Amino acid sequence: MGDNNNVKLPPGFWFCPSDEELIVHFLHRKISLLPCHPDVIPDLHLHHYDPWDLDGKAMTGGNKWYFYSRRTHETSRITNNGYWKPLGVDETILSTSNHNLGMKKYYTFYMGQPPQGHKTNWLMQEYSHISNSSPSPSSSRRRRSQSKTDYSKWVICRVYESNCDSDENDDPELSCLDEVFLSLDDLDDDEISLIN
Amino acid sequence: MGDNNNVKLPPGFWFCPSDEELIVHFLHRKISLLPCHPDVIPDLHLHHYDPWDLDGKAMTGGNKWYFYSRRTHETSRITNNGYWKPLGVDETILSTSNHNLGMKKYYTFYMGQPPQGHKTNWLMQEYSHISNSSPSPSSSRRRRSQSKTDYSKWVICRVYESNCDSDENDDPELSCLDEVFLSLDDLDDDEISLIN
Repeated sequence: MGDNNNVKLPPGFWFCPSDEELIVHFLHRKISLLPCHPDVIPDLHLHHYDPWDLDGKAMTGGNKWYFYSRRTHETSRITNNGYWKPLGVDETILSTSNHNLGMKKYYTFYMGQPPQGHKTNWLMQEYSHISNSSPSPSSSRRRRSQSKTDYSKWVICRVYESNCDSDENDDPELSCLDEVFLSLDDLDDDEISLIN
Repeated sequence: MGDNNNVKLPPGFWFCPSDEELIVHFLHRKISLLPCHPDVIPDLHLHHYDPWDLDGKAMTGGNKWYFYSRRTHETSRITNNGYWKPLGVDETILSTSNHNLGMKKYYTFYMGQPPQGHKTNWLMQEYSHISNSSPSPSSSRRRRSQSKTDYSKWVICRVYESNCDSDENDDPELSCLDEVFLSLDDLDDDEISLIN
């Protein structure tokens, strides 16, 4: 998939993958050269885009943007107007059956030149597969990582603007209003009849 | 669509329609006899199913079940093991441009025989279109409602078990943890390099 991503989901449908889905169903298939249906996450060069320029380029889901990028070893990544800096917080992603699937690393976006940039509220989560986040990859994966295309170095980036209030309101239906309704007294006991 | 609904979405995709999407993109199209792509919401007889029997029959999205049903005028609806009783709370559904689209009515499920049933934490939201929730439908809609099939009397039901904790955790990524990470001091200022 190229640099122009305009995936339009039908009304009512959202792209909202879990950590496990991102690694198992997207990153693993990318690394393993398996087809991914639907192929919605594009490959982007992280340093080509400031986070606010990702809209229309990366896959969108609930005010978050997703793309594949090549994993690099440096700790910060420069864009046109700033840079991504690691928070130094890494999470191990476990499957529901408690297997280690990979890592999630956090980055914050800074405006300006490093190291004097101005911190913003843009965040990035970078997902790497166990095959390139573990010190002891399997032999088959090691062979693949040494191939010409070096697919094991793909990561998935999830970029979003941190805002607890708006995050929790992604789905306007999910509120505690239901509990209030449940506690209301019933108003009447009209006739009961079946739907025909 | 029949009584057996096994729509399987690709990993990462969720069915999570807003009030406006349910009325405009699903109910309105149903009433207007327009095709709906994808046609994921089935027609069910409300009184055939206790709420916990809807799984595999109704369309699922985030621990909520969706189906079309015929609108009736009675205030409670009997199922095999209980009945739905109105809470007496109606909401007007407005579009983003502030137009009246329809109504949302709340029901609670009671186990047992009315009116001595035992209240459960199962809730139902019943969505009706403006054409059958307004006292003055347009003439074209009135003509349609008088047709043999009487499609204007369709409603959409969204059934779910009320539980604030689980509702808010539908998306495990949406937490205030991000704010904590943002407040952390940066750990180091290693070299900046571009992704090749």
